Order: sequence, then C-alpha cells, then structure tokens
Amino acid sequence: MIDPWFIAPLSALVSIVVGLYFYRYVNSQDSGTERMKEISSAITEGAYAFLKREYRTLTMFVGVVSVLIFVFLPFPPIWDSGANLVEHLAIALAYLFGSFCSALAGYLGLSVATKANAKAANAARNGLNKAFPIGFRGGAVMGFAVVGLGLLGVSIVYLLTGDPHIILGFSFGASALALFAKAGGGIYTKTADISADLVGKVELGIPEDDPRNPAVIADNVGDNVGDVAGMGADLFDSYVASIVAVLILGQLLNLLPGSTGVFLQMPLVFAGLGILAAVLGALTVRVGKKGDPGNALNMGTYVTCTIFAVMTAVATYFLNYEWRIWGAAIVGLIAGVIIGMTSDYFTSDDKAPVLKTAQASTTGTATNIITGFSYGLHSVFPPLIGIGVASTVAYFLCAPLGTDYALYGIGMAALGMLSIVGLIISNDAYGPIVDNSRGIAEQAGLGEDVIRITDELDSAGNTAKAITKGFAIGAAGLTVIALLAAFKQTAEEAGGVITFDLMNPLVLMGAFVGIAMPAAFSAMVMLGVGRNAERMIAEIRRQFKEIPGLREGKEGVKPDYAKCVDIATVGALKELMPASILTIGVTLIVGFIGGIQALGGYLAGSIFSGLLFALLMANAGGLWDNAKKLIESGVHGGKGSEAHKAAVVGDTVGDPFKDTAGPSLNTMITVMSLIASLFAALIVEYNLLNMLNL
Amino acid sequence: MIDPWFIAPLSALVSIVVGLYFYRYVNSQDSGTERMKEISSAITEGAYAFLKREYRTLTMFVGVVSVLIFVFLPFPPIWDSGANLVEHLAIALAYLFGSFCSALAGYLGLSVATKANAKAANAARNGLNKAFPIGFRGGAVMGFAVVGLGLLGVSIVYLLTGDPHIILGFSFGASALALFAKAGGGIYTKTADISADLVGKVELGIPEDDPRNPAVIADNVGDNVGDVAGMGADLFDSYVASIVAVLILGQLLNLLPGSTGVFLQMPLVFAGLGILAAVLGALTVRVGKKGDPGNALNMGTYVTCTIFAVMTAVATYFLNYEWRIWGAAIVGLIAGVIIGMTSDYFTSDDKAPVLKTAQASTTGTATNIITGFSYGLHSVFPPLIGIGVASTVAYFLCAPLGTDYALYGIGMAALGMLSIVGLIISNDAYGPIVDNSRGIAEQAGLGEDVIRITDELDSAGNTAKAITKGFAIGAAGLTVIALLAAFKQTAEEAGGVITFDLMNPLVLMGAFVGIAMPAAFSAMVMLGVGRNAERMIAEIRRQFKEIPGLREGKEGVKPDYAKCVDIATVGALKELMPASILTIGVTLIVGFIGGIQALGGYLAGSIFSGLLFALLMANAGGLWDNAKKLIESGVHGGKGSEAHKAAVVGDTVGDPFKDTAGPSLNTMITVMSLIASLFAALIVEYNLLNMLNL
Repeated sequence: MIDPWFIAPLSALVSIVVGLYFYRYVNSQDSGTERMKEISSAITEGAYAFLKREYRTLTMFVGVVSVLIFVFLPFPPIWDSGANLVEHLAIALAYLFGSFCSALAGYLGLSVATKANAKAANAARNGLNKAFPIGFRGGAVMGFAVVGLGLLGVSIVYLLTGDPHIILGFSFGASALALFAKAGGGIYTKTADISADLVGKVELGIPEDDPRNPAVIADNVGDNVGDVAGMGADLFDSYVASIVAVLILGQLLNLLPGSTGVFLQMPLVFAGLGILAAVLGALTVRVGKKGDPGNALNMGTYVTCTIFAVMTAVATYFLNYEWRIWGAAIVGLIAGVIIGMTSDYFTSDDKAPVLKTAQASTTGTATNIITGFSYGLHSVFPPLIGIGVASTVAYFLCAPLGTDYALYGIGMAALGMLSIVGLIISNDAYGPIVDNSRGIAEQAGLGEDVIRITDELDSAGNTAKAITKGFAIGAAGLTVIALLAAFKQTAEEAGGVITFDLMNPLVLMGAFVGIAMPAAFSAMVMLGVGRNAERMIAEIRRQFKEIPGLREGKEGVKPDYAKCVDIATVGALKELMPASILTIGVTLIVGFIGGIQALGGYLAGSIFSGLLFALLMANAGGLWDNAKKLIESGVHGGKGSEAHKAAVVGDTVGDPFKDTAGPSLNTMITVMSLIASLFAALIVEYNLLNMLNL
Repeated sequence: MIDPWFIAPLSALVSIVVGLYFYRYVNSQDSGTERMKEISSAITEGAYAFLKREYRTLTMFVGVVSVLIFVFLPFPPIWDSGANLVEHLAIALAYLFGSFCSALAGYLGLSVATKANAKAANAARNGLNKAFPIGFRGGAVMGFAVVGLGLLGVSIVYLLTGDPHIILGFSFGASALALFAKAGGGIYTKTADISADLVGKVELGIPEDDPRNPAVIADNVGDNVGDVAGMGADLFDSYVASIVAVLILGQLLNLLPGSTGVFLQMPLVFAGLGILAAVLGALTVRVGKKGDPGNALNMGTYVTCTIFAVMTAVATYFLNYEWRIWGAAIVGLIAGVIIGMTSDYFTSDDKAPVLKTAQASTTGTATNIITGFSYGLHSVFPPLIGIGVASTVAYFLCAPLGTDYALYGIGMAALGMLSIVGLIISNDAYGPIVDNSRGIAEQAGLGEDVIRITDELDSAGNTAKAITKGFAIGAAGLTVIALLAAFKQTAEEAGGVITFDLMNPLVLMGAFVGIAMPAAFSAMVMLGVGRNAERMIAEIRRQFKEIPGLREGKEGVKPDYAKCVDIATVGALKELMPASILTIGVTLIVGFIGGIQALGGYLAGSIFSGLLFALLMANAGGLWDNAKKLIESGVHGGKGSEAHKAAVVGDTVGDPFKDTAGPSLNTMITVMSLIASLFAALIVEYNLLNMLNL
C-alpha cells in the first residue's frame, strides 16, 4: 500500500494535472469573431497590466517583509547568540515561497479566465450545453491551481523542515498576497464599476458594456481581478492557514503520552483526499441541452462532499485514525454547506429578504436602503450560530480524547470545511467568466438569443456566488478560531500556560481594539474606492471631451482603455497601503505593548467583528443587487420606474460592501492571526507591560 | 458630622427639590398666544396618550414578570422547601418599585418638556437669553427627576434589605421600562417623522411642521417621547445598573480580611456627591444676551466635573477611602467626557466627516451613503479604545489592593462616569424642547426673528446631543463590563470559581450568539418602523382625501391628530414585542442550555457588538443629519439641489439608525446583563449541559 505521507503531494500533483488539462481544453476552443477576439484580448491585456503592477508592488513589499522576518523571526532575533540562522532563513524562504505559490495560482487562474469568456460567448451561439463547460472548466483551472499549489507547497515545506512553525511563514506569504489580491482587487473592481456606470449610464445615457466607454475594459478586467484572482487568493490563504493551524495543534498531540503519532499525517491525508474528491466532483459537473446550470454546480458540490466523507472514512478505518476526529472534519464540512445555503436564502430573488427589499423600493431610496441593511443584519444570525455550533460540536466530539484533542478537533472542522475548496473556487470563478461572456456577447453584437443564454449562465453564477461567499466566510471563521488556538499554543511553548479570560482587563482591552479594527479597515477601503473613482471619472470625462468622434461612436475611433486600467490599478494599490499598514501595525503594537493576553483578546475581538461585518456586507450587498435585478425583470414597474431608481442606488451602495470591504475582512483577520502566531515567541519575551512589571 | 450613609438619600431629595423648583419656574412662564397654547396642549395630549398606552402595556408586562420573579428568583424556586418567601417577595417588589420610579421620572420629565416648548418659543420673542433658561430648566426637570428617584430608590431598597442582589430587581425593573421607553419610543418617533415627511413634504409639497398635516402633532410628540422620556429612561437604567454592579462587587470586598468595610458606602456617597455637583453645575448654566447657548451647556458640564472631582476628593480624605478607588472614578469621568468629544468630532459640520459626506452628496445618493457609513465605521475607534483604556487603567490602579479590588475599580469608573448624569440628561432633554419651540414658532407664525433665535437654540441642542449620546454609550459600555463582573461574582457565590476563557468552546459559542443579537435586534426594530410607517401613511393619505378643505387649509378645518398619535403608539408597542421577547428569551435559552460560561461569553459578545453598532449608528446618523443641514445652509447648491436630495436620503436612512436602533442597544445589553445576574444562581444549578454531564 502507498505510504500515507505521499497522499497529499500526489493529490496535489493530480490537481495540478487536472488543472492543466482543463486549461488546454479551454484553450482549444474557438474564440469567435475578430471583434470578440479583440475585446477578449483587451481584457486579457488589462488583467495582465493589473497583475504586473500588483506583483511589482508586491515584490517590493514581500522583499522588505522577508528581510524583517529573517532578522526577527522566529526567536531569538538574529543578533542574539542563540539564533539558529538556518531556521531564520527557512522561515523567510517559506514566506517567499508562499507568496510565490499563491501568485502563480492567481496568474494561471486569471490567464485562463480572461480567455474563457470569449470562448464561452462564442460557444453560446451553439447552445447552453456547449458554453457551460467552458465557463466551468475555465473556473476550475483556478480552483485546482489553488488547492494543488497550496497543498504541494505545504507538503514540500513540511517534508523539508518537519516544523509546522516554518509553514506559518508559508501561510503568511499567502496571506500577504491575498491582502493585495483581495482588498486591492476589490478597490480596483469597484472603482472601475462605479466610474464606468456613473459617466456612461448616468451622465451620457449609453448602455452598460458599451465599447465607447473608456472604462469598459477596466470594468471587465475588474470582475476577473476581484472575483477570480481575489477569491482564489483569499481561499488559498484560508486553505493553507487551516492546514497550518491543525499541524501546530497536532504537533502537541504527537508528543502526548499514548499518542498514535498520526496527528500531523491526518490533516495532510484528509486535505489530499479532499482534492481527489473535488477532482471527481468536477468531472461529474455537466449540463444537458435544456439543463439548469445552477443545479449542475450545486450537484457537483454535493457529489464532492459525499465522496470526501466516504474516502476519509475509508482512510480512517484503514489507517486507524480516531473516528471522533473524522467526525469533527465532517461536522465542519456540513456546517460549510449549511452556511452557504443560508446566504442563499437571504439573497435569492424568490425569498422574503429580496422580495421585501424590492417592494420597499417603491416607497423610495431610503426605505430600500434601510430594509436591505436590516435584512443584512438579520442574515448574520444563522451563519454565526453555524460557526459556533460547528466548533462546539467538534470540540465536544474530541474532548473525550483529552482537552488538547478538543482544540485539534476544531482545527479539523475547519480543514474539513475547506477540503472541498477546489470545487468551491471552480463554482465561484465560473461567475465572472460567464458575466464577461455576457458583456462580450453584447459588445460584439451576437444577438438576443445568445445574450439570453449568457444571461442564464450568469444567473447561475450569481446564485453559486452567494453560496460560495457564505462558505468562504464560514471557512475563514473556523480557520481563525483554529489559528487562535494555534497562537495560544505557540505562545505557551514559549512562556507557559495562558488563558484568555474575558475578565482580565488586558484581554478585554485587546478585544475592544480588535472589534474596532474591521470597522476601520472597511471604512478605509470603501473611502479609498470613492477617492479612486474620482480620479477615474475625471479621466473618462477627459477622454469623451478630448477624443473627437468617441461619443458619437464614429467608425475606427477607440478610447484609451489602457489608461483607465492603469489609473484604477495604481489608485487601488495606493489606497490599500494605509489599510494594510494599519492591519499589520496595530497587531504588532497591541502585542508589544499589551503582551500575549491583550493580543489574544484582540484576535478574538477582530474575529467577532470581522465575521459580523463580512456577513452583513456580503449578504446586504447581494440582496440589494438581486432586488434591483428583480425589479429589472418587470416587477414594481420595471426598468426606468422610480422603484428601479431606488434599487439602483441600493445596489451601488451594496457594491463596495459585497465586493470590496466585506470579502477583504476574511483575509484581514487571517493576516492578523498569522502575524500574532509568528511573533508569539518574541512578544512573550519583549512587551511593555512585562517590562514595567505590570 | 453627618453620617455618610445619609449623603445618598439626602442628595437624592435635594435633587428632587431642585427638579420641582425648576418645574415651578417653567410652569410660571407665559405660554404665549392662543394658537401656541393650542399647539402645545395638542403635543401634551399626544404625549400623554402615548404614555398612557405605553404604561398600560407596561403594567401588564411588569405584572407578569413580577409574578415570574416571585416564583423563580432568586434561588431556589418558591416550591422548594428551602425558599425564603420574604426574599422572593422583596425582589419582586423591588422590581415593581424600579419600574415605578423610572416611569415616574419619565412622566415628570415629559410633562414639563411638553409645556416648556411653547413657553420657550414665547420667551424667544424677547430674546435668546430669555428663552434659553426655560429650555434648559425644562430639560433639567427630567435630569434631576432621574437621578433623584434613581438614587433614592436604590437607597431605600438598600436601607430596607441590606442586600445588593435585591437591588438587582430594582435595576431590572428600570431596565424593563427603559426597553419600552427607549426602543418603543424610538419606533414611535421615527414612524411619525418618516410618515409626516413622506406624505407632507414629498407627496404634497407642504412645509415641515405644517398644521394641516395630520401627523404633525405625532411628529412633535415623537421628539419628546423618544428623546426626553426615552433618553431619561435609558440613563436611569445605566445609572442604577452601575450602582448595583459596584454594590455587588463591593459586598465581596467588605468580607475580605483586612477590609475597611466601606465598599458599599463609597459608591452611594460618590453617587450622592455627583448629584450635588450636578445641581451646582446646573445652577451656573446661563447665557448672556449675545451668548452662545452651546458654550453655556458645555461649561455646565465642565463645572460639574470639576466640582465632583473636588468633592469626592474631600470625601475620600475625610472618610479614609482608598485614593486608588477615587482615581478609578475620576478615570471614568474623564473617559466619559473624552468619548463625548470624539462623537462631536464625527458629527460637527466643520470637521472632515460631515464636510466630506456633504461633498460626496454632489456625486449622488449612493456616494453620500457610502461616505457617511464609512465615517460612521471610523467613529467607533476612539470611543471603543476609550472604554478599553478606562477599564484597563481603573483595573491596574486598583489591582495593587487585590484582584477583587481591580474589578471593583472598573465598576467605580462606570459610576464615576455616570455620577454627573443629572446634568447630561438636562443638556440632552434641552434639545427636543427647543426643537419643538422652533416647530411651534413656525406653526404659530411668530416671524423670522423668533424662528432664527429658536434655530440658534436648536443648533446648540444638536451639538449637545451628539456629546450626550457618545457619553450615554460610553457609560453603558463601562456599566455592562461592571455588570459582567457582577454576574461572574453572583455565579461564583452560587457555584465556585469561574473563568470566561475564550478557548472554552462554550464561551466561544455563547459569544457568537451574543454578537449576532444586537444585529438581529436592530434589524427587528428598524423593519418595525417601516411596517408601522406604512400603516400611518395610509391614515394620513385617508385624512387628506376624506376631510374636505384640509389640503387647501380652509379656516377651521383640522385634521384628526389623535388618530395618528394612536396608530403610531399602538404600532410601536406591537413592533417592539418580538424584539423584547428575543432579548429576554435568547438570554435565558443560552443560559439554561449552555450554562454560566456560555452565558458569560454571550454577554461579552453582545457587549462587543452592541457597542459597535450603537456607536456606528448614532454617529453615522448624526453626521448624515448634519451633512444635510450643511447643504441646506447653502453649500453645494443648497436646498433643492441634487446634492440636497441625496443628503435628504442619507438623513432619512440615518434617522432609524440614530433614533431607533442605535440608542436602544444600550438598554438591550443592560437588560441582558441584569437577567443573567438575576438568574445566575438558578442557571448554575439547572442547565442542560450540566444535566447531560458535559
């Protein structure tokens, strides 16, 4: 029989191979007419321009941070005589490797997504069932690149060093990239979207996706960088972080007397089997000529979950793992699916929240906003309870094995939830691809029938996206809880037993700072979108004014698409910087002033408020969007009615909620948790309160 | 020398006497023309109609709850042979007494406020300096009734029973009333406001406060029931709760070996001195002919703070109290003032948040909303840090005396902050009185000059309100932290040492439910406003349609004001019920299922998210309001411009934020904390996890 240690790297390789197979499949499809190829290549160019600039800034950022890591981490600092230079180097290299793997996955996913859009639009001329697999497999490239490179990277670092704490460096590298890709991409995409709409639709009254609009390519690029590359990097980050957390917690278990010593192997085996399950699930996803693409995507998820449960049960049986721990992983998986479904309820256009918000639009903009926001507030209840229940059940399932096992169980629940993430990303990345297909079909004038088919594909993408967003937040929630446990354990290894007692004022003080952080971060990126949009709007107006014939649509006159892409990109990175510095800076300040307990409270506080705002913003944004679409379908007066105008404002308010601030919060709290764990040993030794003997 | 135990009840009596003196002062002023008297008496009638119905519903609610308290509390239940019937009766009676005292304070404050408005408007004909004291002293009746009756009630219960746990019952009675007055009043006031505006201003284009509008009296009543009675009940609640928390924590200290045994006396003495300081401060508040009323209000606050600090220092010296504990009280006081000031920054019309939000209105409604919301998110940072720092400093100041002293120190910080609350309420209640004066001046046609003066008075009220709202939230924050400590101690008295360790999944699970609660509560009351407004709008439209000559303003034709007041009142109470049941029900469910630790996590979670949303909503609402007013003053195109329309929507969104949901959250978390403490002993014994041996 195969050595179980090889399951993870081999599965990761399988994932990469399947990803490449899908890549070739998509690439071999026809891109359609000249006009379509032209648009597609403009989007591709724009996306590359964004990536290039982002990666350039990132390289500098990552370079600086890796030097700092080398000098200071793990402990003691490099100038101390006890420092182990190899370890310092290993962690810095792991950090570089982590950001490289995540960047590579993002690059692969984005490059195929920007090609798949035109190909899917072209295939839509021959029917839904021809177009769907191009969209899905285009998205699956991202999905399998993420899990493949993520697990391969973790396996390599682990096989080389055998030390989970070094993998923390890898994970932090992935997180740093995710912060840029997700929050930076989020600012970028909304800048382009708002600016294109405001000048195009509102000021000049030209339709969406009109090729005369200088921002149209930037807008199309935005869907890809925000939703494909950003979401991929976000889940890469959570995926790797959940594995690291379990490895750190498992390391302790392996040392306990009577331990079977498999607690480092088990998470890697489960992660590997998760990849195989996702591959099998993805291969079953198909749709008939009259089929429902939304159903096909959901079926793929259920198939994957079932295969994963069976395969891990078989592994648990043959490898003599603890059944209770298997149970914890399955609890996490089920919780993930349930949380996804509740997001679906709050954003579906046939359920009360969207229906009532659409109806509220008839009495004005303010009632639309208040109603949507209120349902957004309601929507946090089920997933928060879901995360709470999942972690409690996982804990108590494993508690009979011992307290440390119970925390490990929470980690395995997070890992179980994230095990099928390959398929989740595939479903999610499908959305922006077919959304772009619709845009291309419109810009290239492919006719009403094709647009109707792409609309249907797009609508399935929107539903899938609501579910995957809920899933991503739930997964991040369990992961950061596991990371909090890992942080505690890392600190305990350095400085003795710790409790994060809420009646300890340091914990409480930390928690108060922590709960304020996601609010401040959200505010900064949302205000950043506003400032960035101002710059871009000025540029769009300039082009319409200065390029003769552009507004009239004269043959051969083209706007300067690249300039708009550039402005949005540079601005997004600029606006992101203060928020990133805040995230990293305050975490270190709290730690080095208040010590481990303040930092623990701070992490808990930021988890609480981060999840709260992430759910609120994602769901409120989604339901405003769908309320608008519902009205556009003809309800309450349809397009152009007063209700529609109100709903458009609601949707515009929701855009930075759901596409910029909300989804960045996952990444933000993961970054904080990883920094805390990385600096734990250093903070135990050097902190102000300690020095003042308080 | 006087026995220190008499300071509290005597000061309370002084407060009541001063309140009555102000009452007579206001009453002796002239109410102006017949038309003014007519309007004023309509408002008074409307307010009484609201109170009558509210108190009727409350009586039933309080009756049922007091029976339940008698049967179940404290511990064991009444059917148990060990039950002490006297204790059961005492706690039920204390509960009734608490709600009665708070209701009486609300009645007194409201009855003078609804008279003071016309009198102040009339006095404004003779100048600002004549009108100002009527407004201020009218508000001060509420202020001194609240602190007088609150402290007198606590003193009476304590002197009769000697048991702080019985005072918990008194405090819970006040909280139950506050929930009705604040949240019910909040739903009422926004129902009336939105409905009056929507039909009057938007549909028919008649001015605000136009007497033809059937909802105009309901709207004027709303300012009084929401802002005067509601705010009074809210601060009554916090005030009493902070004293109770300190008494419970002090009881333990008195039992410690080496204790000076003054730890129950000290909070009562400080509270009494706080009242005297507020009385002296209030008597110094006056304004010259050309004076600035805003300055006068603020000076009163600073004078009161100084007097309080000096008087308590003198008491500490002569009565041999611990200086460190005095320090904790002063830290709380300073924190309260600072938190108030930061609210002022975020809502002042000459600071960046309001200026930028006003500017964002020029690019549309959505940017106004996003910008205002983002600054609202930013605004939570300083006060949360303020609360965190205050509690940490108070803790470490008192920690050298012993751990239990440190928690007592946090309680004293809350008490210090709330000691000057008599003056804070006076400043706050001043706002709606002069706001109504402006309305009356307009409705009675007193001319531009008088309206200008009432505008000036009103503007000072708005600034004062921003500060007092921040103060109220800060005070509630420190109070609920102290209550959390009191809850822990009550539970420990019943069942041994407890820690609320964040790595305990029960604590974590509780926290996840807790953070979701304020979100759900806010959503319910805001959606309640929407439903209630629908009913009221239908009634206003009916009156305009069915009453001949109303719309044209024919001589002698009057709308049916009372009907509108009635609809808003009945609807508000109806909409409030589910939210109240949720608050009480979930708290008990979490406790009886998860036990003390789940409940502790739950309280902490609801404190975190409650403060977050309370601050966000209060400040975002305030800044939208002031951005609108700034534009109305002529900036960015002034009234009627596109920017103004956008700002009006922002203001309308902000209304239920700042006047309904936001300010109710204080009360909600206090109610939860008190229920938890009251049921602590019962929950220690009977909870599901305990029974399942988990």
